[in-house]
Amino acid sequence: MSLSLEQRCVHTIRTLSMDAVQKANSGHPGMPMGMADVAYVLWTEFLKHNPKNPKWDNRDRFVLSAGHGSMLLYSLLHLTGYDLSMEEIKNFRQWGSITPGHPEVGITPGVETTTGPLGQGFANGIGMALAEAHLGARFNKGDQNIIDHYTYAIVSDGDLMEGVTQEAASLAGHLKLGKLIYYYDDNKITIDGSTDLAFTEDVQKRFEAYGWHCIPIDGHDRDAIRKATKEAQSVTDKPSLILCRTHIGFGSPNKQDTAGSHGSPLGDDEINLTKKEYGVDPEKTFHIDDDVLDFYRKAVDKGAEAEAAWNKKLDAYKSSNADLAEEYTSIMSGGIPKSWNEVLPVFDADAKGMATRKASGLVLDAITEKIPALLGGSADLTGSNLTKAQSASILQADNYGGTYIHYGIREHAMGAMMNGMALHGGVIPFGGTFLVFSDYCRPTIRLAGLSHIPSVFVFTHDSIGLGEDGPTHQPVEHLAALRSMINVKVLRPADANETAYAWRAAIENNKGPSCLVLTRQNLPTLDRTKYASAEGTLKGAYTLNPNDKDPKAIIMSTGSEVEIALKAHEMLKTEGITTRVVSMPSFELFEAQDEAYRNEVMPKAIKTRVAVEAAVPMGWEHYTGSRENVVGMTSYGASAPFETLYENFGITAEAVAKKVKAQLA
Amino acid sequence: MSLSLEQRCVHTIRTLSMDAVQKANSGHPGMPMGMADVAYVLWTEFLKHNPKNPKWDNRDRFVLSAGHGSMLLYSLLHLTGYDLSMEEIKNFRQWGSITPGHPEVGITPGVETTTGPLGQGFANGIGMALAEAHLGARFNKGDQNIIDHYTYAIVSDGDLMEGVTQEAASLAGHLKLGKLIYYYDDNKITIDGSTDLAFTEDVQKRFEAYGWHCIPIDGHDRDAIRKATKEAQSVTDKPSLILCRTHIGFGSPNKQDTAGSHGSPLGDDEINLTKKEYGVDPEKTFHIDDDVLDFYRKAVDKGAEAEAAWNKKLDAYKSSNADLAEEYTSIMSGGIPKSWNEVLPVFDADAKGMATRKASGLVLDAITEKIPALLGGSADLTGSNLTKAQSASILQADNYGGTYIHYGIREHAMGAMMNGMALHGGVIPFGGTFLVFSDYCRPTIRLAGLSHIPSVFVFTHDSIGLGEDGPTHQPVEHLAALRSMINVKVLRPADANETAYAWRAAIENNKGPSCLVLTRQNLPTLDRTKYASAEGTLKGAYTLNPNDKDPKAIIMSTGSEVEIALKAHEMLKTEGITTRVVSMPSFELFEAQDEAYRNEVMPKAIKTRVAVEAAVPMGWEHYTGSRENVVGMTSYGASAPFETLYENFGITAEAVAKKVKAQLA
Repeated sequence: MSLSLEQRCVHTIRTLSMDAVQKANSGHPGMPMGMADVAYVLWTEFLKHNPKNPKWDNRDRFVLSAGHGSMLLYSLLHLTGYDLSMEEIKNFRQWGSITPGHPEVGITPGVETTTGPLGQGFANGIGMALAEAHLGARFNKGDQNIIDHYTYAIVSDGDLMEGVTQEAASLAGHLKLGKLIYYYDDNKITIDGSTDLAFTEDVQKRFEAYGWHCIPIDGHDRDAIRKATKEAQSVTDKPSLILCRTHIGFGSPNKQDTAGSHGSPLGDDEINLTKKEYGVDPEKTFHIDDDVLDFYRKAVDKGAEAEAAWNKKLDAYKSSNADLAEEYTSIMSGGIPKSWNEVLPVFDADAKGMATRKASGLVLDAITEKIPALLGGSADLTGSNLTKAQSASILQADNYGGTYIHYGIREHAMGAMMNGMALHGGVIPFGGTFLVFSDYCRPTIRLAGLSHIPSVFVFTHDSIGLGEDGPTHQPVEHLAALRSMINVKVLRPADANETAYAWRAAIENNKGPSCLVLTRQNLPTLDRTKYASAEGTLKGAYTLNPNDKDPKAIIMSTGSEVEIALKAHEMLKTEGITTRVVSMPSFELFEAQDEAYRNEVMPKAIKTRVAVEAAVPMGWEHYTGSRENVVGMTSYGASAPFETLYENFGITAEAVAKKVKAQLA
Repeated sequence: MSLSLEQRCVHTIRTLSMDAVQKANSGHPGMPMGMADVAYVLWTEFLKHNPKNPKWDNRDRFVLSAGHGSMLLYSLLHLTGYDLSMEEIKNFRQWGSITPGHPEVGITPGVETTTGPLGQGFANGIGMALAEAHLGARFNKGDQNIIDHYTYAIVSDGDLMEGVTQEAASLAGHLKLGKLIYYYDDNKITIDGSTDLAFTEDVQKRFEAYGWHCIPIDGHDRDAIRKATKEAQSVTDKPSLILCRTHIGFGSPNKQDTAGSHGSPLGDDEINLTKKEYGVDPEKTFHIDDDVLDFYRKAVDKGAEAEAAWNKKLDAYKSSNADLAEEYTSIMSGGIPKSWNEVLPVFDADAKGMATRKASGLVLDAITEKIPALLGGSADLTGSNLTKAQSASILQADNYGGTYIHYGIREHAMGAMMNGMALHGGVIPFGGTFLVFSDYCRPTIRLAGLSHIPSVFVFTHDSIGLGEDGPTHQPVEHLAALRSMINVKVLRPADANETAYAWRAAIENNKGPSCLVLTRQNLPTLDRTKYASAEGTLKGAYTLNPNDKDPKAIIMSTGSEVEIALKAHEMLKTEGITTRVVSMPSFELFEAQDEAYRNEVMPKAIKTRVAVEAAVPMGWEHYTGSRENVVGMTSYGASAPFETLYENFGITAEAVAKKVKAQLA
């Protein structure tokens, strides 16, 4: 066997990937085969990681943005000694395995983020690098650089075409994230064929325009990969893009450089031919030479040493910076100090009241100093979303320690970067835009739900209540669309005090994203001596008027329409009809309560139920039994002052009272 | 009065905009004030349009992508003689006016597309320019260039930051759309403040990297605007971006060049000062000098002449190209020839069957030659979506007459470009991606719904049924999320024949977008001698087994789960329980039927109802009365062969039968 150890190490990534895809009869062999040289150099010579502790704070982050090439990552994880057995490789894409079709964070040790939907990993990585820069600025003291790592990613032409990538790349350049190093798998092939079909832009020039440092290389020249990586590391004020000209399906006599190697198994015959081309035994499957495994597994000792050295550094840091070290430990372990919620403001009853976005801003003013992990921002709607706490300073390239990010008009990158920041750890990201633009970042909310990422989305201007901006800006279907997502908490508070509790629910939800849905217009701050405590918000729904005994009907509502529900209640009262008013800021929290509580709030015996919400009725039928019992929107909105809109679209107390009476009749 | 007529013409746009925003006490004065010079030059010296016939086929298209500057457009429309009265200007942003907060196509004569959500207009315009290039290639003969117009747009820094813009810009460069001329309002100000906060990339270099021709100018130098526009027109193989350095809130002594002039009325005092600065009478509001109006209104005669000349050209064309002219007339008036649906394939009963995406591909093969307006494409999933008819050739810069577009991995741009193409007229656009990526183009589906644009979205791989690619690619909430949208038709056919009818419903829906939701996996082709005709698809829902009299329960389902519903029916039959099976490919079409039909399919008397769909239950409660009566998904999916997934997630005939029996018990 005349092949060098290095060459066999590289080929092993290729053969494992081919074999696993073939066995699964499903998957993407071409990318791992094409990027094996890059992956080998990066993972054995540069990546600082500890396979036995994939959660080590100061590890380099590696993101496989081209998530379809998951077998590249699984091969690396197995080879370098992560808790990912050969059995799992053989169970690639099978029920119960930890080797799903696309990498999923939380499922597989060493997987930093869930990828597959293109562009997401690219932008997640930028969030990770930003979190690193931010934490470094806050905690590093002189040479006591306890947070000091790179964020690497492998990205594909598909990633580069996606809008989310382009948004995030521009912001990364603006923020001069010098420790971000991305390898572009420039293989000239997409699913449809040659990239010439649709992608002929000058990628290098584009990234230079964004402020990146670009290094074009032959992606199979390992010396060039080494040199480029070192060069990228040496450029500290710009993100780096190493453009690696590669061959998809490298070495496959009939499928290299074709879309045929992209998304399907090569087939036994072609695998055979390819292994022969590599000079390895075609009879062996899932084979790893002993010396190859030994070489890769050096990562285990190396990683342990690296972490030990870091632990020593951290100990020294703790001695010399006790307070900072305490804060560091706290934020890296979740970031929510005990009794933080004691500072949540309590708002006095006030008929004029305030917008819930305003209350949200006041909550942020109060909690920002208590929760140092908070890292806020807005997609260029700071003054509208009211997401900037007064004490927050702006995070910029010359002030990475700032706690407020101007994302620009880039909702999608904001969401994906928040996800990356949360996954990095040490920060609790939140970001604002208008509710209607939740559509622009929807894929990131989904991935946060799937990946249990506690990003907090602040969605203001939440209905026709925003008025004159008109139907392009008036969400109608967005509440239903967000509620349809799994593991996503939607919170639409009815007044200032519910807003404080909604923030509490969002901060304390560490299992997935939360969406705060807030008004532009003022809402009365309810008199809690008359109505039940807003603490009921934490249970998702609660009875506002428990003292009105023997109600004949339940009127349920959220947010700005609770005021209408209460008015309908009063109107009906004058006619001798007692109703219960249920404020229901979060369907998801309510469904998480036990049956006893749910029955207490909505007794089964009370069949007369009307819901009112300035949105499509979908989702309410579960509580009202029928769509007809919902006062909601059945069309897009319109441009006019909001009072006119409520009147004209029939979102009124009269309409609610009428429906109650019709049902009772 | 020493101001030139030209200067007064320009200032009139500014004063009308200031006054209207002030009267509405809402809106965005700064952009119209900043871009008035550009707008004046473009609209009086270059734009080929006919104010008295805003629908003239060969008009230049003008898109105000920065839709918040709507008063710029409304001013121009009023001044140049469109059917937009001064009363409407004075009713800016009020109920019932045709001057909504952001421009809406179909509401206001002369508005080409709905804008406001940033980036959309930018990409719509690219769709329009592509439709122009396509139709020109197909119909122009020598100098008989009956389709030959420019597409202009005014775009903002917000547009340029949005991902959808970046996707579309890259594709426009690739496609060498030389008649696309965009003016970038480079005013250095966003809502949050200076663009330096988040947007410091080299825009010119980026667009050059995309293959655009860039011309940086002073946006208040009208000679420079003229010269740049001519230069842009002379560059015929590249889109042009004219970077206009402007001052937002131009002339406002205290608010020029500040975010304060962006999104709020200037205030009476500041308007007063600004008018003085302009040298116009501050006492007059909504004022237009007579000679200014006369000058602008020349557009009416000029437009009539231009259209008359074109009509003459068209007449000559008709004489010399009778067949082509007939096709031209047909496609410009909707593009659906009578009896086109006769060619829809009929599929024989087949237990093995085929995937509905496959059936869709066969439908496209059949109808493509019958409907010459069809212009298909995919976001790089051609072989998966099966969207390319065999007879379709690829549209590229050297073959604009092609009828299939490789959009690249750019779902958002695809949707927005389809909307632009449909609005241009002459084409019926459809485009494919996976259902899970409907999230990536969701803002475009919404705008199609709001604007009554008949774009057809082909969403394949529609459930856990796609198998091994796993939860990142498995839609779970997307059916509910799409159904929550207003004026969007969602069609999920159950077999090959329903697929043909679903395409028919989509083609015949000219009032809004349609979403075809199709499987990756094979489905049996139902035996229509045993079951009712698939024509019931056109009514949204229909009884598959009307001959099973006196059913005790209704089992309803869509798409791939209809097979499961039928199995449950058979299982229950063996136990002596008669059930009705309702196939329900489209909630929206069903809701559009009269009550008699809806009661016929789902008699009120039959209270036992179970739905089965491999998706979240939301939305089904309207038909089943309760979420508990739905067999669906309550979590994200997983990676495994699809049969394993159905079994493990409990989407089975057994589960359906059990729920029916539980209810009957």
